[in-house]
Amino acid sequence: MHLYSFDDFRLGAGRGDGRLAEITDLVDETVAHDRRMATLIAVWDELRPAVESAIAAGPQLDVADVTLRAPLPAPGTLAAAPVNYKRHQDEMGGEGGVYDGEVIKTIETYAGFVKASSSIAGPDERILLPFDDRRFDHEAEIGVVIGSTASSVPRERAMDHVFGYVPLLDITMRGQEDRSYRKSFDTFTPIGPAIVTADEVADHADIAFELTVNGELRQRANTCDLIYDIPRLVELYSTAMTLSPGDLIATGTPEGVGEIRPGDEVVLTIDGIGQLTMQTAARAALATGRVA
Amino acid sequence: MHLYSFDDFRLGAGRGDGRLAEITDLVDETVAHDRRMATLIAVWDELRPAVESAIAAGPQLDVADVTLRAPLPAPGTLAAAPVNYKRHQDEMGGEGGVYDGEVIKTIETYAGFVKASSSIAGPDERILLPFDDRRFDHEAEIGVVIGSTASSVPRERAMDHVFGYVPLLDITMRGQEDRSYRKSFDTFTPIGPAIVTADEVADHADIAFELTVNGELRQRANTCDLIYDIPRLVELYSTAMTLSPGDLIATGTPEGVGEIRPGDEVVLTIDGIGQLTMQTAARAALATGRVA
Repeated sequence: MHLYSFDDFRLGAGRGDGRLAEITDLVDETVAHDRRMATLIAVWDELRPAVESAIAAGPQLDVADVTLRAPLPAPGTLAAAPVNYKRHQDEMGGEGGVYDGEVIKTIETYAGFVKASSSIAGPDERILLPFDDRRFDHEAEIGVVIGSTASSVPRERAMDHVFGYVPLLDITMRGQEDRSYRKSFDTFTPIGPAIVTADEVADHADIAFELTVNGELRQRANTCDLIYDIPRLVELYSTAMTLSPGDLIATGTPEGVGEIRPGDEVVLTIDGIGQLTMQTAARAALATGRVA
Repeated sequence: MHLYSFDDFRLGAGRGDGRLAEITDLVDETVAHDRRMATLIAVWDELRPAVESAIAAGPQLDVADVTLRAPLPAPGTLAAAPVNYKRHQDEMGGEGGVYDGEVIKTIETYAGFVKASSSIAGPDERILLPFDDRRFDHEAEIGVVIGSTASSVPRERAMDHVFGYVPLLDITMRGQEDRSYRKSFDTFTPIGPAIVTADEVADHADIAFELTVNGELRQRANTCDLIYDIPRLVELYSTAMTLSPGDLIATGTPEGVGEIRPGDEVVLTIDGIGQLTMQTAARAALATGRVA
């Protein structure tokens, strides 16, 4: 099933064929609009039959006719994996190797980082680059959506807590600042167009994806190449942080990271999960609002 | 005014004399309990007279008789300042200096980092140390509570967006992992006992505070010694991230950072703002849920 947030953060569900049925009324109307999807996910087992019925009754809306929002506009926690693809690691010399004068470190050293929840953007927004003299990079990733509260969950049981997947871009400013700061600017975590439930993905360790910028292929990879696979990421982050329904894990990016500039079009395509298209633009940020 | 969250996340207000008046009913009952305080803050100008009336009518409860919770249990964003005190910087040789074989970097290089919102803990909880073979440190800080939406706010207008202050501990695991991961474990951001409104603080650049562990003085400093003062922190972080009512900025820690072990008592005392007392304990975390 594909789950959408659209227009004024109403909820929709469909089969991924470009049509959706509205299911907003399944969630208590007193729930804040930015928590609607997380609330739906938290009680999914109970609501799933009603969602299936709504889709079976015939989707009323065309995805092209609505404004698609970030399906999870305000995750409680947004945990992310640094350097987590073997080929990317290998091309740089492997953990402990030296590349471009620096010792290579990967997820095996860095473990993870946190992005500000406020960095989430939807397909209806643009990636806003705040400074005109800094470099910004695209990072294509698969986002894992947590379905139930997870604390110190061993990898063997981790998939029980995975609700689904969503295309995710981890936009990054290059430089000396702390990693979590450089990745937490507004609009630096576009997600969408839909959350795809885990039952639609036959094998979490065989998801192919690619990213283009202005039509040029930049990144192409498969989750079979992850250093820490999805169950191990859930184990790692749930041991540090109690994860809740609607929280997100960004699983890391493969080789091919490159620069984006205002006016670019970034397209992330994940087999069986969806295609996220984002435009980039310059943002008029405060020139003094930075350290360098 | 002192604002509390207590028992089942009911809201209270008082003058800091150990008594509080319940004001839960000022916030719409449909607001999720963990968003009550942020909602109160968002409409503070409107509700302040009613809060003052409730206090004037005579506080009904003794702080000692209730269970104090984290006054902001789930901030949308928790931004934090790395190495931000001049004396701490000076004792290490200053920006660019070399200390213990490493080039010293401060907020002037790192800018900031993000902590997981789920790391918040209240005075009723304990700081839980997840691994018995790693070192964990206390960091005494002043938490700044954002009062109104702030995006690219210049330092000259920054204080308009500061609602108040709260004692805050930034607990840290030492090691090679990413800073935001090492600081985002559950219970690693204790705050409380109360948020003190900004009008009670005569000068944000003259707030004295100290931290003891088992009665032994470890940290003592004053915000006059900040490298980036509070208005500049608001400018810096609001330029990266749109800050919302109830968001938190951890302003950085001074010299004297040191180890804590299970069974310790950590007491942070901030002049005019309050005293936060936390016990530490070991947590049974998954041994495989880490990288080293």
